Amino acid sequence: MSPDRVKKLLMITIPVLVLVLAAGIFFFNRNNELVLEGPQGEIAANETSSSEWAKFYPAHWDSYQANYANTEKTSHFDTKPYLTAIYAGFGFSKEYNEPRAHVYTIEDILAIDPARKKAGASCFTCKSTQVPEMMQKYGEKYYLMSFDEMKGQITEPIGCLDCHDPKTMELRLTRPALVEALQRQGKDIENISQQEMRSLVCAQCHVTYYFYPETKKITFPWDKGVKADQILAYYDEKDFAEWVHPDSGAGLVKPRHAEYETFINSTHQSAGLACADCHMPYTKVGNKKISSHVWQSPLNNIEQSCTTCHRNGTDWLINRVETIQSQVKQTQDLAGEAVVEAINELKISQAAADVDQAKLKEARELHRQAQWYLDFVVVTNGYGFHNPTETLNNLGRAIDIAHKSAKIAREARGLK
Amino acid sequence: MSPDRVKKLLMITIPVLVLVLAAGIFFFNRNNELVLEGPQGEIAANETSSSEWAKFYPAHWDSYQANYANTEKTSHFDTKPYLTAIYAGFGFSKEYNEPRAHVYTIEDILAIDPARKKAGASCFTCKSTQVPEMMQKYGEKYYLMSFDEMKGQITEPIGCLDCHDPKTMELRLTRPALVEALQRQGKDIENISQQEMRSLVCAQCHVTYYFYPETKKITFPWDKGVKADQILAYYDEKDFAEWVHPDSGAGLVKPRHAEYETFINSTHQSAGLACADCHMPYTKVGNKKISSHVWQSPLNNIEQSCTTCHRNGTDWLINRVETIQSQVKQTQDLAGEAVVEAINELKISQAAADVDQAKLKEARELHRQAQWYLDFVVVTNGYGFHNPTETLNNLGRAIDIAHKSAKIAREARGLK
Repeated sequence: MSPDRVKKLLMITIPVLVLVLAAGIFFFNRNNELVLEGPQGEIAANETSSSEWAKFYPAHWDSYQANYANTEKTSHFDTKPYLTAIYAGFGFSKEYNEPRAHVYTIEDILAIDPARKKAGASCFTCKSTQVPEMMQKYGEKYYLMSFDEMKGQITEPIGCLDCHDPKTMELRLTRPALVEALQRQGKDIENISQQEMRSLVCAQCHVTYYFYPETKKITFPWDKGVKADQILAYYDEKDFAEWVHPDSGAGLVKPRHAEYETFINSTHQSAGLACADCHMPYTKVGNKKISSHVWQSPLNNIEQSCTTCHRNGTDWLINRVETIQSQVKQTQDLAGEAVVEAINELKISQAAADVDQAKLKEARELHRQAQWYLDFVVVTNGYGFHNPTETLNNLGRAIDIAHKSAKIAREARGLK
Repeated sequence: MSPDRVKKLLMITIPVLVLVLAAGIFFFNRNNELVLEGPQGEIAANETSSSEWAKFYPAHWDSYQANYANTEKTSHFDTKPYLTAIYAGFGFSKEYNEPRAHVYTIEDILAIDPARKKAGASCFTCKSTQVPEMMQKYGEKYYLMSFDEMKGQITEPIGCLDCHDPKTMELRLTRPALVEALQRQGKDIENISQQEMRSLVCAQCHVTYYFYPETKKITFPWDKGVKADQILAYYDEKDFAEWVHPDSGAGLVKPRHAEYETFINSTHQSAGLACADCHMPYTKVGNKKISSHVWQSPLNNIEQSCTTCHRNGTDWLINRVETIQSQVKQTQDLAGEAVVEAINELKISQAAADVDQAKLKEARELHRQAQWYLDFVVVTNGYGFHNPTETLNNLGRAIDIAHKSAKIAREARGLK
């Protein structure tokens, strides 16, 4: 090739390459916008109606609307028949359904069995974007109001305002119980990383809690830590019981959906993941990427969730999850039956003449513990997948303690 | 730049680039030789002395020699004091040490408590490269010979010939029990992949087995599958017991180091890993890569083992393993204590007058099961890490069944 031809070739090739590169960078960035699109206009500062936010975020709204497809409302009792005996004397024994999509919260709470409404207005705390407004309106009285006093004022289910700032779209915490629990732990809540917030907005509700005596304020029992034994130690120290089991006479505490607590120190969490990484994976909508707002099992959109990190194929992933969940289910059922046995033995003993009161007390104390470790697993979504080994460890304790309770209850009526 | 200068520049640059590229490819390949170096000369077809192989494979020999540093010989009883009660009436109750390096097999077996030598010559089956020679020499009589008849003939510990073909250096199976078990499962043993062989050579010994009645032949109880419940079902069908527990009267079976069985269907195994991937990781020796022949916990050389796949840092990895192992240890201890309780209750009941024989039989049957599920975990190296959830599932069963055994044993003497 002559020097002239080389020169010509370079003069054509170089600008073409530069153009292709620039265009590539432009389209790459355009297709990989991970940040939320900025708001175009104004959403009112306390806009509780998610359909108003929809005008500015149509793709997110479509995703949110897809939650309506999740209509299943299975009863926990169908798969865990021992639960009615375990919850005897408490509202949960009357009705206890698996959770359904966030968009149905108002419909579902209004239809709930009256036995479950005794906690009052507090029941709405995790059900509606209107709750912070109600808390502002009524102050601390909010927690003391009745279910019926509140129900007429609340119409909007869980929505945008629960987790986002309408101006900046940043994640934020709107429920005081979490903020207060974190502050008691000494956490600087003004300096929380974005990745931590992607779990903490969920932890406003997907946690266990109790109604603080007298004030009835929703309180997270985390002052000694978030693990099952630490929470039970917190309740024990306060000598706190939510109800007395009519058959066993034991003062019990009820865990609630402890997904966040269970997730903490799991393999996934300790590796840096947040709730949203699996439950709200990035999804392509047209030429944009958004965080999915269909809150569901990651197995339902495994291609967006698990396979982002795990490249072993969806069949393998589903098989792993199902294997672990069936192991947990099997162990959970053993624990459930053992706790029922403890209740049955206590029932006979507390009705018996000449019962050894010290033994009876000891057996009741063990019933309280066994029920706690079992229920901490039962009520947590995911059949242990949020932290498989810790879950199975808790179930092992539940089985052991429940059998010990039954044994001591038998001994209380003179059997050795 | 003038066309001439461009031409000159290209004439210099291109050959230099080609040279650099060629040199790069050469050195890259040279530094990444994953295959074993071919033998230079001849190793005798049945060379049992690993030091003879050493002349041809000095790097592997150095690695093998490093096993001598692993001198610890901890007693299982120090960390699991309940084991003496569980193994009462059986040789294992006299002495049961954690395994020490492969190079010490002969030294350790000769020093073992006489109570453990009753199984006879078979005890040597996994201890020496000379065993296939002995099996050839004595035929089926090998298994019927006494410990003392064999001990003078065996001097060489586990070594090269146990897993390698001296001519081709390929992995091969030298122990009949595994080959026969695989054949009974319908496996085509002539067509086993290299990756599968990287587990199966270990599975020649790191498995549970029993001495077939009358012939005393070492047999793997895998005909119904390799899982704890499947193996127990196999023994139950044969009404097989290795010994009768003197305190409980139950006929028991003893699992042995079921690492291979436990590993099957674990997350790591189902993701395609073999034993050697973690326990014999590729290690750089000079400008070569060899499979490490220091058989040990992968935590001892975590940079070569775990971090090949897991990029979260060694501190994180160690913390994960320790978390899981401490959860297993805690649950295992609960199971151990529950089995001891069953034994104690059975001991009282079988000495009692007017005992309900049907109940006693039932309680003994449950003792057999509980002991099996517990011991399957106890004797498997790694505190459950080979398959954490399955291990915890087995321990949950052990706890549940042991308490049921104790309860029914109490009922057998008229207590309700």
